Amino acid sequence: GAAARACAWLLACFATAWSWVAGFARKVWRIAADDPRKAVHGLKVGLALALVSVFYYTRPLYDGVGGAAMWAIMTVVVVFEYTVGGSVYKCFNRVVATASAGVLALGVHWVADRSGELEPVIVTGSLFLLAAAATFSRFIPTVKARFDYGVTIFILTYSLVAVSGYRVDQLAALAQQRLSTIAIGIFLCLAVSMLICPVWSGAELHLLTTRNMDKLADAVEACVEDYFAAEEPTPAARQSTKSKSDGYKCVLNSKASEDAQANLARWEPAHGRFGFRHPYAQYAKVGAAMRACAYCVEALSSCARAEVQAPPHVKRLLRDVCARVGARCARVLREASRSVATMTTSSSSRTLDFAVADMNTAVQELQGDMRTLPSTVLAAKLLAAETTSLMDTMPVFTVA
Amino acid sequence: GAAARACAWLLACFATAWSWVAGFARKVWRIAADDPRKAVHGLKVGLALALVSVFYYTRPLYDGVGGAAMWAIMTVVVVFEYTVGGSVYKCFNRVVATASAGVLALGVHWVADRSGELEPVIVTGSLFLLAAAATFSRFIPTVKARFDYGVTIFILTYSLVAVSGYRVDQLAALAQQRLSTIAIGIFLCLAVSMLICPVWSGAELHLLTTRNMDKLADAVEACVEDYFAAEEPTPAARQSTKSKSDGYKCVLNSKASEDAQANLARWEPAHGRFGFRHPYAQYAKVGAAMRACAYCVEALSSCARAEVQAPPHVKRLLRDVCARVGARCARVLREASRSVATMTTSSSSRTLDFAVADMNTAVQELQGDMRTLPSTVLAAKLLAAETTSLMDTMPVFTVA
Repeated sequence: GAAARACAWLLACFATAWSWVAGFARKVWRIAADDPRKAVHGLKVGLALALVSVFYYTRPLYDGVGGAAMWAIMTVVVVFEYTVGGSVYKCFNRVVATASAGVLALGVHWVADRSGELEPVIVTGSLFLLAAAATFSRFIPTVKARFDYGVTIFILTYSLVAVSGYRVDQLAALAQQRLSTIAIGIFLCLAVSMLICPVWSGAELHLLTTRNMDKLADAVEACVEDYFAAEEPTPAARQSTKSKSDGYKCVLNSKASEDAQANLARWEPAHGRFGFRHPYAQYAKVGAAMRACAYCVEALSSCARAEVQAPPHVKRLLRDVCARVGARCARVLREASRSVATMTTSSSSRTLDFAVADMNTAVQELQGDMRTLPSTVLAAKLLAAETTSLMDTMPVFTVA
Repeated sequence: GAAARACAWLLACFATAWSWVAGFARKVWRIAADDPRKAVHGLKVGLALALVSVFYYTRPLYDGVGGAAMWAIMTVVVVFEYTVGGSVYKCFNRVVATASAGVLALGVHWVADRSGELEPVIVTGSLFLLAAAATFSRFIPTVKARFDYGVTIFILTYSLVAVSGYRVDQLAALAQQRLSTIAIGIFLCLAVSMLICPVWSGAELHLLTTRNMDKLADAVEACVEDYFAAEEPTPAARQSTKSKSDGYKCVLNSKASEDAQANLARWEPAHGRFGFRHPYAQYAKVGAAMRACAYCVEALSSCARAEVQAPPHVKRLLRDVCARVGARCARVLREASRSVATMTTSSSSRTLDFAVADMNTAVQELQGDMRTLPSTVLAAKLLAAETTSLMDTMPVFTVA
């Protein structure tokens, strides 16, 4: 009857909801399992907040900083970032912006105080002008990259101090109190983020670069293999080459994350093998060279997928020499990746030079073969372009 | 003497500082002149802050919201963004996160109140768990894209309300007061951002897409021209083709900004020709097709720059037909750009179909020529790849 139908409907609803929840939970679990540091980051934030809330509960500490313990909590929530570089960037910006805006606001308040009636006009006018100028300054690329957060905090602090100056009498004491609580929050935040399983932007950038290089090497090989493959590969083999040759796709879109990491890495103190003046800017150049290489791979693989193919006898003729070029190109990339990964220049640079020379020989062989046969200029030209783009990166590797 | 030298040194210092300042000012001026809306945005933020500070100065209004007028100022500073979509996104996140965290904190506070001695333990424990879970949830892609700011505000509000619950007695009144001041800030912020020279994310995305398409069309033409150019072009001519063919480079790296704009555009109310359910997701597909096309252009232009070139007689033979393919390809792109720009499907889609058919004829001519001559498979294959990638975008245009 109706009751049974309603019951069945309810069960179906539950089943749908349950499968959705289970799917979501599986997705979340996979994120945590792929990179347990992300789960650890959550626990670190919780720990920092719990520590800072202790200030609130222990009377002597609370009385020391006055009612402003709020600001310590706020600081921890807002400043704690996934990487150490991000946290340091935000802490530095917060301290400098709060201090400079506070001093400026006190100065304006002093002037406004002496002008009697005009006080609200002066305060509001200065607020309008400063907020407009500071907001516009965020569109300047250097300011955007290094002080974006600081500008927000500057406007915030200035407006809070300047406006509340009208009501609160002991402004200087308030500002001093606020700065000291912010300092407590920053100290706790940096201590937790650097001492417990730290995630360094520099190391992340390093890993991203070497991993992308390896993917590129795989893709070059897989692509050439794919192009000269027998007419009908088995589906399984096709799948494996496909997954290999698709690896280059994440190289194509890695510019944004590379830039962000390099930007944050600049704020990090020396750690492990990364010195104080580690050449993070070089990674951007290596990244650009890798992307140029990835564009070539993209073009090559679109040729492999194209309907119009070179005639079979041409393919057969060029197969071996092209495969050799591809393999050597991949070897150069792997060698370069290893040299970047180990950060050595003396021993591995010789192997790298050797590999590059090897590749150049192979490219010249291919060009020789092509002169006798005016076809498939394509593969050669693209590989030549790759070679030149690779050659451009060589000086960079020796610096890194 | 020494005084004269010191004077000269001081003058040199001033001159250096002055030239630096002048250069910086020129750069800043160019940013403002290129897009006056950026300067207007600064003024808008100043205006919103000045308006909100009026609350502080007018006694009756101030008494109405209590001492919490601070929160209105804070809200304006933190929530005001360049585009309307960004402001709405932040406002929505702020309101929902503040309300839900406040209710949750009140509930936990009620439970903790009844447990007597255990109160600090329960509050700190719940703070730790919630902060850890919320921070981890930011790594889930959907949450990151839509509620990243909300999660920060959730943790912030929860910790402030839960911890201060230990001291402040009238917690409910505090929460209500805070919500009402936040509402004032949000109302002012949205009013200023939507009524005075609004910048819509959707319109920005639209403009970016059509402009990129035009640049791509220029680049395709310039590239083919470059490849088949006479051996030594004049430097001026080379410069002009170079600047034209370099336009595609910003297509290559536009993915991040496209994604960000599409993400914010989703929050915008209907405006102008952009309806409530405008298919913003389609722009991402068009963008991906354009990038695939740009990779082809990149490969083509690297061929034009390569040392190994096809023999001159081959070039001469293929010149006309290749130029025709390039020109028609560019025409298809321009036609598509106009169809997207005007958002019409009926009248222009016929012109578009016509242009595509035209291009296909040209490609087939080229393929026919190539069969008779087994060289420069390159250009044809790349153009064929371009054609297919373009054909993929066709259904998208009809939707948009």
